[in-house]
Amino acid sequence: MANDQTKFLLSERDIPTHWVNLLPDLPGDPMPPLHPGTLQPLGPDDLAPLFPARLIEQEVTTDPEVEIPGPVREAYKLWRPTPLYRAHRFEHALGTPARIYYKYEGTSPAGSHKPNTAVAQAYENAEAGIRKLSTETGAGQWGSALAFACSLFGLECEVFMVGSSYDQKPYRRSIMRTWGATVHRSPSDRTEAGRGQATHPTGSLGIAISEAVEVAANNADTNYSLGSVLNHVMLHQTVIGIESIAQLELAGDEPDIVIGCVGGGSNFAGLTFPFLRRVLRGEARTRFIAAEPAACPTLTRGAFRYDFGDTAGLTPLLPMHTLGHDFVPPPMHAGGLRYHGDAPMVCALVKAGVVEPRAYRQNETFAAAVQFARAEGILPGPEPAHAIRAVVQEAERAKQTGERPVILFGLSGHGHFDLAAYDAYLDGELADPEFSEADMDAALARLPEVPA
Amino acid sequence: MANDQTKFLLSERDIPTHWVNLLPDLPGDPMPPLHPGTLQPLGPDDLAPLFPARLIEQEVTTDPEVEIPGPVREAYKLWRPTPLYRAHRFEHALGTPARIYYKYEGTSPAGSHKPNTAVAQAYENAEAGIRKLSTETGAGQWGSALAFACSLFGLECEVFMVGSSYDQKPYRRSIMRTWGATVHRSPSDRTEAGRGQATHPTGSLGIAISEAVEVAANNADTNYSLGSVLNHVMLHQTVIGIESIAQLELAGDEPDIVIGCVGGGSNFAGLTFPFLRRVLRGEARTRFIAAEPAACPTLTRGAFRYDFGDTAGLTPLLPMHTLGHDFVPPPMHAGGLRYHGDAPMVCALVKAGVVEPRAYRQNETFAAAVQFARAEGILPGPEPAHAIRAVVQEAERAKQTGERPVILFGLSGHGHFDLAAYDAYLDGELADPEFSEADMDAALARLPEVPA
Repeated sequence: MANDQTKFLLSERDIPTHWVNLLPDLPGDPMPPLHPGTLQPLGPDDLAPLFPARLIEQEVTTDPEVEIPGPVREAYKLWRPTPLYRAHRFEHALGTPARIYYKYEGTSPAGSHKPNTAVAQAYENAEAGIRKLSTETGAGQWGSALAFACSLFGLECEVFMVGSSYDQKPYRRSIMRTWGATVHRSPSDRTEAGRGQATHPTGSLGIAISEAVEVAANNADTNYSLGSVLNHVMLHQTVIGIESIAQLELAGDEPDIVIGCVGGGSNFAGLTFPFLRRVLRGEARTRFIAAEPAACPTLTRGAFRYDFGDTAGLTPLLPMHTLGHDFVPPPMHAGGLRYHGDAPMVCALVKAGVVEPRAYRQNETFAAAVQFARAEGILPGPEPAHAIRAVVQEAERAKQTGERPVILFGLSGHGHFDLAAYDAYLDGELADPEFSEADMDAALARLPEVPA
Repeated sequence: MANDQTKFLLSERDIPTHWVNLLPDLPGDPMPPLHPGTLQPLGPDDLAPLFPARLIEQEVTTDPEVEIPGPVREAYKLWRPTPLYRAHRFEHALGTPARIYYKYEGTSPAGSHKPNTAVAQAYENAEAGIRKLSTETGAGQWGSALAFACSLFGLECEVFMVGSSYDQKPYRRSIMRTWGATVHRSPSDRTEAGRGQATHPTGSLGIAISEAVEVAANNADTNYSLGSVLNHVMLHQTVIGIESIAQLELAGDEPDIVIGCVGGGSNFAGLTFPFLRRVLRGEARTRFIAAEPAACPTLTRGAFRYDFGDTAGLTPLLPMHTLGHDFVPPPMHAGGLRYHGDAPMVCALVKAGVVEPRAYRQNETFAAAVQFARAEGILPGPEPAHAIRAVVQEAERAKQTGERPVILFGLSGHGHFDLAAYDAYLDGELADPEFSEADMDAALARLPEVPA
């Protein structure tokens, strides 16, 4: 019998001591990343110019747990443990017999789950004697998380921000500056990669990645930092799910369904991996739903192939669901979900049928977000609005079947910097951008043939 | 001996059951509000067209405690108890021996302390059978808090937003709409008061108050709601200080100095009144500092007089420090502190010498806010940045004297909607607006003579 609390809080003593590494439990054969030049399996040394040894170790380790360094746990204390809520008012608004819980990561200074890995990455780089981190950012969630993390560990932070976002979302840029970061409009004239793209003035995430990687590769005191996709990023995010397990125990409930949104996969992995391990080990039966935008439907429509992480094809090739690295997703407000690929670990789980992907259109996700905001108060970011849409779907199904499933979803961040999108929705002027299968097919046809 | 935690959290069971009413302990003779027409003491009946009976009762009661209704405590669960932080990193950045704590109210859905009273007011109005609340808002903090509260209790919400803010801060307007409120640009053509001000297209808080009051006075199913100044608003906010006392006990510390920013006074009252009662009853020795903007220095430079709450002179006259109700403070980013008067209860404490007011200039408050954000992560609103400036001053004094005072300050809200101001500060383009003593003197000379 669940109790009637609204929030389930843990104390600082309950901040996890270890991250969960799902790699050893992952179904299917391991597929190594490939070198972009030789198309041969990548060795740890190939990553050394960009990442410190400890993060490369975390990228490849098969230990089922990895200890969280003391100073990272200290930094986590600034906002962790995050609250887990029982959505009493949202359940009531939906008229559903389902019991709905959400884990809220928007209480972090940067307003999303991103600082969970930003802090760990900044720490390991500072320990390795690195002076500066370079990175890219789209709408600014990741860039602001890394700017915050660098301010804690005394690192400089240089952010290449996609040109169109730089112009349209000045406040995300301001918050990065407030935390001391330098922000460049990408494409910039500071790199070869940027100067070569002067004909694409609005920029793209792919171009910004190339610029940030180039800065790190050319400067011995500078490393590169990535906010999603890679194994070590998934690892760092598992604090979300580990805390959720402890909090659901306080609530006296076990989840039947766990739902998260997926862009690069780090929010989804962070919430679900600790629950997924139980399922993969046969200790629990839980369903997992990955919610993505219909306009960028990587998991539901993409091909499972080796592909590059960036548009220019400079990064290693990873085995993942992809729309093709030079596929350009249409503009949408959930900037964090606008990526051609997905984390290889998440893709392996989709491929194995353990995670069910679903795609939703922009207007239906905002409708769900507004309904949620009016019931629970919190204004969701456009990315977790996709998870909320899936929750509404499951809650309605429960109403029809009369079942009382326990649903847990990840509310990965607030929407304080996305209010123009809410305005457009409320004015009935929000678009439902279309996905072009032909463009995807063309992009996939341009992928290199990988030796078997 | 204080312990080394960063956050001190309470459970939902610790949400206060009663608000603290400081009225019976207030020093000095009680001075009643006066009717704007007759200039005679106001009776409870005079307020009935605007407020429900229970709020009028809370306005005048001399009970030292007032029970918090169950549904209000239930609504508080959405974000209360709020965290109390020990500012380890900020202390380190300042190099001070002082121990600094802050109570953070920015975790509420609306991002500030305002929902503490909005929820209580919406509940009492809904209970009284009212269908709609009308109110004014400047930068939008109060309007968004009331919009959120009305969405919880099924009330309509009509907000008159100061024209210049309506144009310059569209996102605060969007968040009110997301919670279901209707927002009008003030002066509007929907009221006599608005139509009469067509020559002041940028509007003012005084005009917006007049519009909201007119709507409530002319519609039997509509009441008016005010976010500060009045006694019952101070009362509702005391949950902040009550929780802080319990949290400092967990921390094993007693405050030597309590610091808050002051606009209309509700944030300051909410944090300090529970501590102040102990001092007024001789049970503790604590210093209290009220931080205000040098450009709108009500407590430090204003006269203690009877004055109106609005520009047009439609509201009752209150005994308070004032710059004159038609004094127009220069534009500044701490919109919540840009008010000609102050809560009578706070003014009585300043007059009695129990609270020390201090005024700070805009640039020095932003310098303190940026230093805080880089140490603690949280981005402060421009209003609590004034409190942080006072903390820096006290921390530096401690460094000189070698004392180890325990400082508690109120971080009343985040600055997610104020990033244009941070940008201006970081670009060196932030103004330090001047206060005009001549303008104040002229405005004070226009006040009505009140019979002794």
